Amino acid sequence: MQLKNDLLLRAARGEKVERTPVWLMRQAGRILPEYREVRASVSGFIELAKTPALAAEVTLQPVDILGVDAAIIFSDILVIPEAMGLPYEMVEKRGPYFPKTIASIEEVKKLRIASPEEDLNYVLEAIKITKKELDGRVPLIGFAGCPWTIFCYMIEGSGSKTFSKARKMLYREPEMARVLLDKITQSTIDYLKAQIAAGADIVQIFDSWAGILPPEQYNTFSLSYIQQICDAIDEVPVTVFAKGAFFARSEMAKLNCETIGLDWNMKIGESRQMIGEDKTLQGNLDPCALYGSSKEVASATRNMLDQFGNSRHIANLGHGVYPDIDPKMVKVFVETVKDYSTKLRA
Amino acid sequence: MQLKNDLLLRAARGEKVERTPVWLMRQAGRILPEYREVRASVSGFIELAKTPALAAEVTLQPVDILGVDAAIIFSDILVIPEAMGLPYEMVEKRGPYFPKTIASIEEVKKLRIASPEEDLNYVLEAIKITKKELDGRVPLIGFAGCPWTIFCYMIEGSGSKTFSKARKMLYREPEMARVLLDKITQSTIDYLKAQIAAGADIVQIFDSWAGILPPEQYNTFSLSYIQQICDAIDEVPVTVFAKGAFFARSEMAKLNCETIGLDWNMKIGESRQMIGEDKTLQGNLDPCALYGSSKEVASATRNMLDQFGNSRHIANLGHGVYPDIDPKMVKVFVETVKDYSTKLRA
Repeated sequence: MQLKNDLLLRAARGEKVERTPVWLMRQAGRILPEYREVRASVSGFIELAKTPALAAEVTLQPVDILGVDAAIIFSDILVIPEAMGLPYEMVEKRGPYFPKTIASIEEVKKLRIASPEEDLNYVLEAIKITKKELDGRVPLIGFAGCPWTIFCYMIEGSGSKTFSKARKMLYREPEMARVLLDKITQSTIDYLKAQIAAGADIVQIFDSWAGILPPEQYNTFSLSYIQQICDAIDEVPVTVFAKGAFFARSEMAKLNCETIGLDWNMKIGESRQMIGEDKTLQGNLDPCALYGSSKEVASATRNMLDQFGNSRHIANLGHGVYPDIDPKMVKVFVETVKDYSTKLRA
Repeated sequence: MQLKNDLLLRAARGEKVERTPVWLMRQAGRILPEYREVRASVSGFIELAKTPALAAEVTLQPVDILGVDAAIIFSDILVIPEAMGLPYEMVEKRGPYFPKTIASIEEVKKLRIASPEEDLNYVLEAIKITKKELDGRVPLIGFAGCPWTIFCYMIEGSGSKTFSKARKMLYREPEMARVLLDKITQSTIDYLKAQIAAGADIVQIFDSWAGILPPEQYNTFSLSYIQQICDAIDEVPVTVFAKGAFFARSEMAKLNCETIGLDWNMKIGESRQMIGEDKTLQGNLDPCALYGSSKEVASATRNMLDQFGNSRHIANLGHGVYPDIDPKMVKVFVETVKDYSTKLRA
C-alpha cells in the first residue's frame, strides 16, 4: 500500500523532504491517559504486549492523539530472551526480572534460536493489525534490542548500575560470550525480518547499555554484532540507537544502516562531524526539556532544529519520553517540529 | 611533615616523577576482608564513617595491604547534605536514602551552610588521626561531591536511573536550583578548606551524575560551581572527576585544577588532545578488567600506561573498584603500574 505520509522513510534514505519528520521513543505508553486505560484492563505490561489487538490499539494512539509521523509497534526488547528460552516478569516500579539467568556454556547451548513465527507470532499479528488500521497514514517502525543489551539482561537477570556480572563474562569467558551473542544475533535478524514481512516499514535497534563498555570492548562485543544485523537487513531502512556510545560515533558511521540515533548528551555539530553527511541523524532533545512551559518547549525544539539545520534529520527526543510528561507538551514539540522545519527546509 | 612518598603530589603538579603514582577509588572498602571485619563491628556504614578512629583505620588499610601511593579518607559525599540539614540513611543493597527531600524555595532557605567544625568534625578528626598514623608514608586525599551531584540526591532522595525530578527543577525552577547550588557550593568550599587545614594533602571532587545533563546545562548547573570551588582552593592540588562528562572535556581543561579524572569510556588519546598537556589525567582502567587473570590484568594495565605514555598521569581505575574484585588482582594492578611505569619514565 502507498503511504500517505512517507516523510520518515524519505528522511531515513536521505531523500528530499518538505519538513523534518517527528516521532518519540516510548510515545505509545504511560504518558497517554488512553494508554493507561487499556493497560488497566489487563493484568500487566506483558499481557498487553502479548494481546495483538490491544498492542495494535496502543500503537495507534499516539498517531491519532499526538500527530506523530510514525507508529512504533508496542512491544519490548526482552521478548527475544523469552523466545530463546528465558522468560521474564515485569515488576511494578522495578523493571524486568528474569527468574533464570545464564551462567554456563551448557545453559547457553540449551537456548534456542528464536523462531519468530512460533515464539513471537503475537508481535507479528500486532504488526499486521496495526498496518491494516493505519491504512497507510504513517509508516510503522519495528524494533529489537541490540545483542549486547539483550546479553546484559540474560546474564544479570535485571537492570543494574554497573552490569559488572555481564562485563565480567567478557573478561573471564569471552568465548562463551561470543557463542551467546551469536545466538542472540541470529534470533534478532530472523525476528526483524519477520517484522518486516509482517509489515514493518523501517526497523530500529536499541543498544540501551552501550555506554557501560570501554571503547575497544564495545567494538568487539557490540558493534560487530550490530554490523551483522545491519548487513542482513536490506529490505527496509535501519536505525541504530546506541545510548551512551559517544566514543563509537566515528565507527558507527561505517555501519550499513541509514540512521543513527543521538542521545541528549551528544553535541549535534560534533556528532555530525564524526558521523559525516551520509547518515540521517535522529534525536535528540533532552527528554526533561518537555517539563518546561509551552514557550520553553517550543524554543528548545527550534534550537535543536537550528543545530541540525537542513541536513538529514528525524526529530525525536534523546531518550524515551518520561511517563510523567504532559501530553500537551509532546504536542507542542511535535507541532513545533512540523511548523519550524517547514520554514527551515523551504 | 615531609612526605616520604610525594609522587602523587608531584604528578598532580606536573613535576618530574620517577614512576607513575597509583591509587584506586573505593580502595578503602568492601574489597578488603580487613575492612569487612571493622565494618561488622559497628551498626553500619554511617556509624563507621562517623567514628574517627575506625574511619582512620580503614583509610590506612589499603596503604599497608595494597601498597598504593595515597590514602583517601574513608567518608561519603553525602555528609554535606546531612550537615546542611538533610540527614540520610544507607539502605543495605539499595544505597543512600533521604527521608526528607527538597521541593520548595522555603525548604531551600531553611537549609544551613554546613559548618565543618560543628557538623563535620568527625571527618576532620579522622583526617588528623590518619595523618598521624600515616607518618608521612603517602599523601592523604580529602574529597567532596560536586554541587550538581549533591543537588541530585537532595531533590530525588536516592539514586535514580534518570534523575528526572532533579532535572525537572532545572527547567521549572532554575532560580531555586541556583540558590540551592550556591548553598551547596559554599558548604563544599568551607568543608574542603577544613579538610586541608586538618591535613589533607590534595582534594578530589566527584561529579558522579555529570553524565545525565545535556552539555549546555552541564556548563550552567555543574561546571560553573565546580569552577567556583577550584578557584577557592589554592592551598593544595585539586582533582575533578566528572563521570560521564565526555562532552565537557574541552571546557574542563579551563578549570583552575591540576588533575582531571577520566572514566573508562573516555579514549585516552582523544581526552589528552581535548584537555591538553597542562593538566594531569587520572584513570582509567575499566574496573571490570580486574576480573581477568593476573596475566590479563598486567597486560591491560601496561596497555593503559602505554597510552598515557610519558605525559602527566596518575594511575587509577575509571571508576571505584567493585566490591567483589579479588584484592590479589588489585595488587597486580598496583605492582604493574609501579614496575612498568618506572621503565616507561626512565
